[in-house]
Amino acid sequence: MEPRLVREMLERVRTGELAVEEALDALRGLPFRDLGVATVDHHRALRQGVPEVIFGEGKTPEQIALIAGEISGAGQNVLVTRVDAAKGAAVSALVPAFRYVPLARTGSIEVAPLPKRAAGAVAVVTAGTSDLPVAEEAIETLRAVGLEAKRLYDVGVAGLHRFLHRVEELRKASAVIVVAGMEGALPSVVGGLVAAPVVAVPTSVGYGAALGGFTALFGMLTSCASGVAVVNIDSGFGAAMVVHRMLPKE
Amino acid sequence: MEPRLVREMLERVRTGELAVEEALDALRGLPFRDLGVATVDHHRALRQGVPEVIFGEGKTPEQIALIAGEISGAGQNVLVTRVDAAKGAAVSALVPAFRYVPLARTGSIEVAPLPKRAAGAVAVVTAGTSDLPVAEEAIETLRAVGLEAKRLYDVGVAGLHRFLHRVEELRKASAVIVVAGMEGALPSVVGGLVAAPVVAVPTSVGYGAALGGFTALFGMLTSCASGVAVVNIDSGFGAAMVVHRMLPKE
Amino acid sequence: MEPRLVREMLERVRTGELAVEEALDALRGLPFRDLGVATVDHHRALRQGVPEVIFGEGKTPEQIALIAGEISGAGQNVLVTRVDAAKGAAVSALVPAFRYVPLARTGSIEVAPLPKRAAGAVAVVTAGTSDLPVAEEAIETLRAVGLEAKRLYDVGVAGLHRFLHRVEELRKASAVIVVAGMEGALPSVVGGLVAAPVVAVPTSVGYGAALGGFTALFGMLTSCASGVAVVNIDSGFGAAMVVHRMLPKE
Amino acid sequence: MEPRLVREMLERVRTGELAVEEALDALRGLPFRDLGVATVDHHRALRQGVPEVIFGEGKTPEQIALIAGEISGAGQNVLVTRVDAAKGAAVSALVPAFRYVPLARTGSIEVAPLPKRAAGAVAVVTAGTSDLPVAEEAIETLRAVGLEAKRLYDVGVAGLHRFLHRVEELRKASAVIVVAGMEGALPSVVGGLVAAPVVAVPTSVGYGAALGGFTALFGMLTSCASGVAVVNIDSGFGAAMVVHRMLPKE
Amino acid sequence: MEPRLVREMLERVRTGELAVEEALDALRGLPFRDLGVATVDHHRALRQGVPEVIFGEGKTPEQIALIAGEISGAGQNVLVTRVDAAKGAAVSALVPAFRYVPLARTGSIEVAPLPKRAAGAVAVVTAGTSDLPVAEEAIETLRAVGLEAKRLYDVGVAGLHRFLHRVEELRKASAVIVVAGMEGALPSVVGGLVAAPVVAVPTSVGYGAALGGFTALFGMLTSCASGVAVVNIDSGFGAAMVVHRMLPKE
Amino acid sequence: MEPRLVREMLERVRTGELAVEEALDALRGLPFRDLGVATVDHHRALRQGVPEVIFGEGKTPEQIALIAGEISGAGQNVLVTRVDAAKGAAVSALVPAFRYVPLARTGSIEVAPLPKRAAGAVAVVTAGTSDLPVAEEAIETLRAVGLEAKRLYDVGVAGLHRFLHRVEELRKASAVIVVAGMEGALPSVVGGLVAAPVVAVPTSVGYGAALGGFTALFGMLTSCASGVAVVNIDSGFGAAMVVHRMLPKE
Amino acid sequence: MEPRLVREMLERVRTGELAVEEALDALRGLPFRDLGVATVDHHRALRQGVPEVIFGEGKTPEQIALIAGEISGAGQNVLVTRVDAAKGAAVSALVPAFRYVPLARTGSIEVAPLPKRAAGAVAVVTAGTSDLPVAEEAIETLRAVGLEAKRLYDVGVAGLHRFLHRVEELRKASAVIVVAGMEGALPSVVGGLVAAPVVAVPTSVGYGAALGGFTALFGMLTSCASGVAVVNIDSGFGAAMVVHRMLPKE
Amino acid sequence: MEPRLVREMLERVRTGELAVEEALDALRGLPFRDLGVATVDHHRALRQGVPEVIFGEGKTPEQIALIAGEISGAGQNVLVTRVDAAKGAAVSALVPAFRYVPLARTGSIEVAPLPKRAAGAVAVVTAGTSDLPVAEEAIETLRAVGLEAKRLYDVGVAGLHRFLHRVEELRKASAVIVVAGMEGALPSVVGGLVAAPVVAVPTSVGYGAALGGFTALFGMLTSCASGVAVVNIDSGFGAAMVVHRMLPKE
Repeated sequence: MEPRLVREMLERVRTGELAVEEALDALRGLPFRDLGVATVDHHRALRQGVPEVIFGEGKTPEQIALIAGEISGAGQNVLVTRVDAAKGAAVSALVPAFRYVPLARTGSIEVAPLPKRAAGAVAVVTAGTSDLPVAEEAIETLRAVGLEAKRLYDVGVAGLHRFLHRVEELRKASAVIVVAGMEGALPSVVGGLVAAPVVAVPTSVGYGAALGGFTALFGMLTSCASGVAVVNIDSGFGAAMVVHRMLPKE
Repeated sequence: MEPRLVREMLERVRTGELAVEEALDALRGLPFRDLGVATVDHHRALRQGVPEVIFGEGKTPEQIALIAGEISGAGQNVLVTRVDAAKGAAVSALVPAFRYVPLARTGSIEVAPLPKRAAGAVAVVTAGTSDLPVAEEAIETLRAVGLEAKRLYDVGVAGLHRFLHRVEELRKASAVIVVAGMEGALPSVVGGLVAAPVVAVPTSVGYGAALGGFTALFGMLTSCASGVAVVNIDSGFGAAMVVHRMLPKE
Repeated sequence: MEPRLVREMLERVRTGELAVEEALDALRGLPFRDLGVATVDHHRALRQGVPEVIFGEGKTPEQIALIAGEISGAGQNVLVTRVDAAKGAAVSALVPAFRYVPLARTGSIEVAPLPKRAAGAVAVVTAGTSDLPVAEEAIETLRAVGLEAKRLYDVGVAGLHRFLHRVEELRKASAVIVVAGMEGALPSVVGGLVAAPVVAVPTSVGYGAALGGFTALFGMLTSCASGVAVVNIDSGFGAAMVVHRMLPKE
Repeated sequence: MEPRLVREMLERVRTGELAVEEALDALRGLPFRDLGVATVDHHRALRQGVPEVIFGEGKTPEQIALIAGEISGAGQNVLVTRVDAAKGAAVSALVPAFRYVPLARTGSIEVAPLPKRAAGAVAVVTAGTSDLPVAEEAIETLRAVGLEAKRLYDVGVAGLHRFLHRVEELRKASAVIVVAGMEGALPSVVGGLVAAPVVAVPTSVGYGAALGGFTALFGMLTSCASGVAVVNIDSGFGAAMVVHRMLPKE
Repeated sequence: MEPRLVREMLERVRTGELAVEEALDALRGLPFRDLGVATVDHHRALRQGVPEVIFGEGKTPEQIALIAGEISGAGQNVLVTRVDAAKGAAVSALVPAFRYVPLARTGSIEVAPLPKRAAGAVAVVTAGTSDLPVAEEAIETLRAVGLEAKRLYDVGVAGLHRFLHRVEELRKASAVIVVAGMEGALPSVVGGLVAAPVVAVPTSVGYGAALGGFTALFGMLTSCASGVAVVNIDSGFGAAMVVHRMLPKE
Repeated sequence: MEPRLVREMLERVRTGELAVEEALDALRGLPFRDLGVATVDHHRALRQGVPEVIFGEGKTPEQIALIAGEISGAGQNVLVTRVDAAKGAAVSALVPAFRYVPLARTGSIEVAPLPKRAAGAVAVVTAGTSDLPVAEEAIETLRAVGLEAKRLYDVGVAGLHRFLHRVEELRKASAVIVVAGMEGALPSVVGGLVAAPVVAVPTSVGYGAALGGFTALFGMLTSCASGVAVVNIDSGFGAAMVVHRMLPKE
Repeated sequence: MEPRLVREMLERVRTGELAVEEALDALRGLPFRDLGVATVDHHRALRQGVPEVIFGEGKTPEQIALIAGEISGAGQNVLVTRVDAAKGAAVSALVPAFRYVPLARTGSIEVAPLPKRAAGAVAVVTAGTSDLPVAEEAIETLRAVGLEAKRLYDVGVAGLHRFLHRVEELRKASAVIVVAGMEGALPSVVGGLVAAPVVAVPTSVGYGAALGGFTALFGMLTSCASGVAVVNIDSGFGAAMVVHRMLPKE
Repeated sequence: MEPRLVREMLERVRTGELAVEEALDALRGLPFRDLGVATVDHHRALRQGVPEVIFGEGKTPEQIALIAGEISGAGQNVLVTRVDAAKGAAVSALVPAFRYVPLARTGSIEVAPLPKRAAGAVAVVTAGTSDLPVAEEAIETLRAVGLEAKRLYDVGVAGLHRFLHRVEELRKASAVIVVAGMEGALPSVVGGLVAAPVVAVPTSVGYGAALGGFTALFGMLTSCASGVAVVNIDSGFGAAMVVHRMLPKE
């Protein structure tokens, strides 16, 4: 991997600039920092163009603070997802720079300027009001990777006039993130009307046969509109990252 | 139950016209005929206004012929559902009057005139061409209970123009049967546009996450359009019977 | 859609009464109001003859109050479903006109007279006492759309005498809503005895193999009584809306 | 285990009638015969009062013939279940004494007289005609353990009159086996009407939401009639064996 | 139903002792009492030889007190199952005669002597200590129907010595209730060693692949020991009622 | 929708060039053709830049030939997916221009030149040899929308050397389609190494706990590599369409 | 079983040293102690070389203290698993010697020296920080059976550099326990790189399609790396016990 | 990875023995051979001590022959699993050296001597005769990695005498593979009696609630005997590979 770097190092070994053992160390001295409970990867930003993102569930506030401190201390922005209100407050108490967004259940530390990208705004559409937290998680993530969002909320297919009214706005978007629970029909309708990339996020909104989001998930995967990309249930973060990969990085 | 009949019998017992043991027998001599492998109910037509319907799966052609003969011999029409082509041919060989409809996988014996009903045509809508067999089963059943059908096929939501084009036709229907597989989004859109009864039939069309029709089933049950009635997967028969109950009987 | 209106508008364009740009605006000026977190559809009542209904789960009391205020401010009645006691109290504090019904977990604001309908009372039957909340949600919804209910509670099939005792009452109903958990056998028995429309509501009553209502749901979908319409688990609201669509609107 | 036998053996060791090593061998010389592909247990009849039963699925005709020969050669009757027609013919060709019953998909070799039992007939009830194969498997098994059966077929709850008509017959039975697919409601109704033991057998009859018999299985497990014993899907054999354990052995 | 009573009544109608309308009323005047939220069946004891049992989940303390009062007021014993500690205390406050058993999560009111039955003790076996609450629910139910229990706790198959040690006790039982969670293997071993009826109760003990009791349930249904009757997960009550039906009533 | 066209039409109505009824007809005369069994949408190509694609399952060869003929007769290319060998032969017999590709189970009729796109080749990676049919379906679809593919087959993560060896090739791709069954781990590894869009296709390769592809599906949806887009099981077509939406259209 | 002991006893019976009844008692007097709620097996350590382990879920603190006291009173070490913080505190209050480890949710009483084993350290690897509690449960169990652990935490496959960096450490381990949630891909990669035994523990880390650990479980069972042993979800204990069985006991 | 090799190569670069570009090539020239449809890994034997194993499902006979030829041509043994009889014959026709074993559904080409290992025989135990194919697949795989097997067939727990009779044989085994379908109880009993490693293989034997092997799988994962390692359903191959990793390689 990274043969250019290897080639340079080998050249320096050949010319004697670099001792064999040093070269071996360098090959081993990969850009990780072992914190005991976590192994932080300082080069992911280089490899993928994104900040390190911390999955907040199942971690204590102390663990989050430790990992986030390691990253931000190296000059990189941090995004933490799936942080409930209590944990958000606890991390904020430990790390004053932690900006917690309750609706999105995310927090961030921004020590570097956010990236600037040329791509137009990403439309973030929800079928209902109860889908907002997932949509806002997507928008916070888009922000972290330098993309703007355009909100179109509560435009589900049962009120088709409501939806058709805003099709023009959808057609202008560089990509569309569609957030819907229950039967998850909205991406099929959106996918049939726009040619741009469509990323569908099933949500756990609904009860009974909604199966905690699996009905929407399966519905989106079998959408009769072709070319709809799907991510995990309630994963606004995942949808934003799919869009991040798709759009030009600068 | 049927207190009028009981009252009349009691009157006749009181007046001595009817002996106690005879009354007891009469109460027991209910209108059933035990054929060994089946118990035929000649009075269901009276009670529910429908012919006896035979579920063809898991029955041999000989059993179907025996039961159908018993019913038609009593002057009632018979409908047999879920009869594959081989079984249809076998029953036809045994019962020449058996009219087999391959696309609907149904057969019938009509010895009495079909009922006449005042209700307007029932719209039978499919999302795709692969949903036809289920739709045709519904239409054969509607016919058996005296209702006409209007076909609107292959108008799924991914091509919304295709669908909106025919909304006026939908709005004229006395009821709408919506047949759809995959994500089953069509009933949500239909339910949002028409005020008439909407009966949704999930089909087993699709693969993988379509779950053999369960994704459509669950999607229809959690439809964001309110008041959508749902029946079993691939049950065109069931949908037609729901409509039969809803519409005026004459 | 709505070709009569389009034709009139086109006539006015032709005669010069209406400027092209104005016509275009009118076509766009659909009867929605975008509240940021929700898009309220003031014309649904016209299209479907029902008030806007708010799904209370996953919404904050503030969001409910905002949306309900927008609707009732426009002179329309509001029904909110799946509101637990704490949220009900919070909305009541924000909106004094909010009438909360704890047993049904619904709330409503009634600023217009309830509709009057000619249809006879709808029988609402439960298999057990634990099914009451779902039955009461159905009854509150029936009320909102102008229909009366007749309660027949705790008449499950294990005590068949108890049930047969009340068949005559069932036979008089314009429609029957059957609410049952556990094995969900009651709609099969009811469906076999009455010719009226039967809408089955599975409930999450029961444990273990009751699967949180799915056993009742699947049992109802495969009922050996034909023509039983099924709605989502615990959805008294959904059942009432199916009945609303079926019965004459005036 | 079997302390009486151990005590006798110990007595004989004490008196010197039996050498220690012989006693050890005897303790080891258990009544098994290792056939390579199977280990036949000649004493199960003693321990449980039933013949060895061979589960036919997944065994070759040669394996069935080998095992059945070992058992019948020792003078015991053999019952083989779940043998399809082709395998039944193949075993019959190898073992002329093999009596194959196509409807029940069972075969048997009877080299000893069937047991005689005092218990009254067991009622075997089916909801529909398609449930017959499972009911007949139960009846063949009852026969093998010395019990008589009374058939009541096709008396499902959707035609309640049909069912109530025969309640008296049910009430006379020493036990009731109820065989039903689809929603599996029949055991709830039977259980509510009779005080005798009720064993419910779900069948894989039905489609879609019938889930290949799991809906009936779960429905029976959550029956609102208390005290219904349940066995595996399509296991007429299992139901008969439950009854065998319940009823007096002589 | 109950032809003897009908015959007597008919005789009295014939002799003029009973007016037709009175007979009709009598036929309708079935022994139910409609409490609004519940319909109490005072004759179930006659029909099935058991007291009315109230399923405590999903009912308020007030509803339980009302129903239990109606039953005990008529001189019948009451058993209430699945009552957690808080609800148990609340009912006790309303009904002083309510005897709450925390470990079994049951309560009872005993206003009549418990039945006396000749059958020997029923062995109640658990695989582990965590299965106790379910076993105790079974034992409370056995008590209510006049049967004694013999406890054999924590004798799972992983410690086979522990289990074999007690086989003689099992063999003396009139029936065996086996309570086990996790993989539910114990009934297979018990069923292979005793000839008496075996009723298996899966419990929700375990985590992950234990599936909240479904693994034990399915394991018991497919037990390689034949004739094992199975009831719902955690249903000690159900198992006791199966045993109640099996054993002589006096 | 399409306000530019509506504006032009309105202008022509205003100037009298177009009669009101003609305008109304034009608004209705949408570009559909109703074939009875299907409704062909000739403008989808315009709206989404793709040919009409026919889902071959559940359609007869005659239906496929009819629909494909309608489309190709209008000068558009046709792609048919999920066509097994027998059906492929049948369609070929009816439509000589039908080019059937057995490995991909697709067929096509190409009457217009394939589109030319500037985007670089799309890497199509499989974990094993058994995943080939799905990969080839993706490649046939990419071809239909004007994209080239680079095959990297059988490079699963259990042989990581095999995989790392080809990372450079992956990094050059404009997008990566990863096709994997069993545990579906490959997209996580790919997603961690490349910054380009990654579309994961679960396949039904594997047995037992592979759950017919659902294990791979769920694994991909919960991939620890962020931004992986997922499509339905075995849907090489779906993955190619996601890529089609992402990449520049010219 | 244990024929050597039986032989000795038989010898003593033969020589008259042991009376028949005494021998019978001895055969029955197996090394169990019945505590009412539990049956403690003091010989398991002899049979399997491990201490008695108490499954803490579903047991009261009093029951745990009673059982643990019985075992430790006999001089054996005790390990209690799945003890949450509240229960841990309650047991500690009852049994001062109880050492509770919050992160591992385990407690222990060590009255005998821990075993010493020659095997090298076991590598315990986690995919993420949220998997720590399961890993620590494994490590506490390894300690109890005399094995050392080497922690390698947060080295998931999405950051492959991070993982490859530590492969040499893995290759030195006597066995590898791999703990991973979400898609559970790590064991496939580990299994492909090391020849030592690999035991995979799925964790319930993740949401939505992670299915509470079942996605990881199924993924590990279908791992493309052959020879990966799998244990129950979140069962660090189970994994350690598999390793215990594999490695030399001394 | 493989730092010793890298170090040697670096030394040779330093000394000028190896040119930089040659070193780079060597690093790239990994021991793979790309066959188009497969990438063969000739060094896996070195890394893991096992031959390349081909998963036969989903591959054509031609693909199997091609891959097997590549491997055996390099002097390595080949094992192919899950090859049905027809495919086995087809491969044998293409590759005469292919030795097909019908009962195990495996085939092999042995061009090198099988490894010799010091470990004692592995006990392969089945619960029933229908489990034989899976057991034989395990035995063929054990043979390929140099291990001997001891068969103990048809010793399920329902006939405990049959099983206890052979415990001594189990206790002598170096490891035990337990193959069982239905409820999968056998590993719990085995695991409680022996201290050696126990690997459990669930099989798809059984019907209905056996869930195609998942009931056995889940039962084994939640076994009350600790330290049971589990592999995929029907994966005799997987179990043998777990044992291969555990036991000394020479």
